Amino acid sequence: MNNNSNTQLPEERNYLDWAATALPDNIIYSPVHIFGNPSSPHTEGRLAKQALESFRARCAEVLRVAPEKLYFTSGGTESNALVLHSLLMRKGKARLLYSGVEHPSIRENCLVLEKMGFPVSVIGVEKDGRVSVSTLSGALEKYPDTRFCAVMGVNNETGALMDLEALVSLVRTNGEKNHLPVHFHADLVQAIGKVPIDITKWDLDSASFSAHKLGGPRGIGLLYLKKPLESFYSGGEQESHIRPGTENTFGALALANILEKHANPETVKEEAKARERLKYLIGKLKLIKRCVLIPNDREEDDPRFSPWIIQVRFRDVPGAVMVRVLDDCGIAVSTGSACSTNSPERPVLSAMGLDEASRLEGIRISQGWSTQISDFDALLTGIEKALSFL
Amino acid sequence: MNNNSNTQLPEERNYLDWAATALPDNIIYSPVHIFGNPSSPHTEGRLAKQALESFRARCAEVLRVAPEKLYFTSGGTESNALVLHSLLMRKGKARLLYSGVEHPSIRENCLVLEKMGFPVSVIGVEKDGRVSVSTLSGALEKYPDTRFCAVMGVNNETGALMDLEALVSLVRTNGEKNHLPVHFHADLVQAIGKVPIDITKWDLDSASFSAHKLGGPRGIGLLYLKKPLESFYSGGEQESHIRPGTENTFGALALANILEKHANPETVKEEAKARERLKYLIGKLKLIKRCVLIPNDREEDDPRFSPWIIQVRFRDVPGAVMVRVLDDCGIAVSTGSACSTNSPERPVLSAMGLDEASRLEGIRISQGWSTQISDFDALLTGIEKALSFL
Repeated sequence: MNNNSNTQLPEERNYLDWAATALPDNIIYSPVHIFGNPSSPHTEGRLAKQALESFRARCAEVLRVAPEKLYFTSGGTESNALVLHSLLMRKGKARLLYSGVEHPSIRENCLVLEKMGFPVSVIGVEKDGRVSVSTLSGALEKYPDTRFCAVMGVNNETGALMDLEALVSLVRTNGEKNHLPVHFHADLVQAIGKVPIDITKWDLDSASFSAHKLGGPRGIGLLYLKKPLESFYSGGEQESHIRPGTENTFGALALANILEKHANPETVKEEAKARERLKYLIGKLKLIKRCVLIPNDREEDDPRFSPWIIQVRFRDVPGAVMVRVLDDCGIAVSTGSACSTNSPERPVLSAMGLDEASRLEGIRISQGWSTQISDFDALLTGIEKALSFL
Repeated sequence: MNNNSNTQLPEERNYLDWAATALPDNIIYSPVHIFGNPSSPHTEGRLAKQALESFRARCAEVLRVAPEKLYFTSGGTESNALVLHSLLMRKGKARLLYSGVEHPSIRENCLVLEKMGFPVSVIGVEKDGRVSVSTLSGALEKYPDTRFCAVMGVNNETGALMDLEALVSLVRTNGEKNHLPVHFHADLVQAIGKVPIDITKWDLDSASFSAHKLGGPRGIGLLYLKKPLESFYSGGEQESHIRPGTENTFGALALANILEKHANPETVKEEAKARERLKYLIGKLKLIKRCVLIPNDREEDDPRFSPWIIQVRFRDVPGAVMVRVLDDCGIAVSTGSACSTNSPERPVLSAMGLDEASRLEGIRISQGWSTQISDFDALLTGIEKALSFL
């Protein structure tokens, strides 16, 4: 593996689980003059505050939004939770809709809100794992009391790419008709730096981002909010009362660096390369008899999917077994989301209509900027080897 | 300033706001072999998980508790919020008591719970800012429905040291009498590494810790839980479902390093040195006519207070003005908590019975391991200069 980032894996390893976490980038992110608490009223505090605001402005420039609409958080999971929990601070209990393939940080917090009395409904997905305009339209018609809707940009298990522009547009038209505005939230953790995004054009109300999926450190993420919300999470004035706790200045710097390095227009170039590599992989996978792509009509170059993630299964081989055997061959892949490794259920695949046996066979392959054809060749060799005795 | 940590401040600066954030330590905390997602099922994931558990064990060793009772969080504010928000998952709405001098991350989350229908009451403090056994006893008698009680270890604005052992003991005796167990939570963010603590002997139900107050990075903290609780914050299986989100492995390593460096028995040695230095400072402050210690009977060597933090005021000089003038002299001090810099109110000083005029005059001086008598001399010179024209 010719590693473009500064992290070196042992030669014998092929890392293909970038959707769980990326190889860390070695961008320096701890200049000492900004160590102060950004909320402190002295020079050290002011320097830190200025630095923090400059990092926010740099993130805003990459995302092409106003800096005051960005809030630093501890990561994607927290960004998603902040938006959902803020519903507790609104008057009344409005209905929430979320797609059947959302990340656990959306799904499980919706279920907690449901326990607390909120009406919650799931938007079904097509066989390809995408939310269609007509399905969402049906859901909005069925539930005219909907005030919140969450659909992710790129699914973390299948790479399914959602047409957020069309979905938000539908929600807006519907809202105008019913005079009921609906908040549209998008988890863009697997989208940013991987596929082009346009928060403003898509007219999102909120969006979540994480640094570590892009090679940045853990513990730092972003929340975009078109309008400020009242946060349920209280305890300090930081981040305009949206996210309390001493600001992670060095993390914010790392995030700004990593966004500038990987997000548009770099995304477009890297996505094209990833698409080429994946075309090669899919072509080879289709030659393996027991291999079934998920969904099974995924094409070599399929605009419905992000090229960074693919879900496949091998007939009669449990995904967990394939992951273990490949790991012994030096190849790191996973089954579903790392956030629910211990759960035998696969809600994403279930929402796509896969039967239980097929769901248990699914594995996720996810590539990154430094992935090479040779990594995929090693993977294919590993798969052949595994299938020879499984 | 002869700096024992690796961070160098500009020569002309004297940093005396360690309670807001410490000078960062340069302990290395990013070995690349543990970059994997600790929840991933492959070698990279397992190595990261093993590392994470070894860091937890090291923290546990320092804190003398079982590793499985420690949960990594994004910091002290989140640790406090996790415990309070978990009350939403319990049946019924039990009464919460919190001391009148708690950090905003306790106070404000209690107020949010109050808005949501929980009965919430404040435990008054003595003139020295400490919770007395008799006051707590009175509160428990007045509110026999109490099920949760929060008292911090060391106050972040005055250094007031709470007798947690006696307070918890009272709560236990009372609970046995009424057959109503009360959860006792202690925010130990300003206690750990500064004064000796004993979670087990004190019999705390939960306690919060932060790395950056000890020179560690932002974005990492700890929550101690005697028994697991059901977290309101959902979204992933990490940290035994208590704190979702990809685990901050490098942060956990930094926290383990910093705890080993600064917490007991190192605390005892460093506390003695800090006490000597503070004795010197208080002696000198007492010679300044317009200087009033808060509380005004604080002694040079006063066992009621942590020696790392002191609150003082200067007659007829607003605290914010003194902070600015001292900053111009190269000295960093603050008024109250950095978490509520923009708030003109001073709830801690108010709880201690100070009138509004006196509250507005308060400033906080907080020292660290590398603080020297020369820093205090610079401060005293700055104060004299300020008072000459204010």
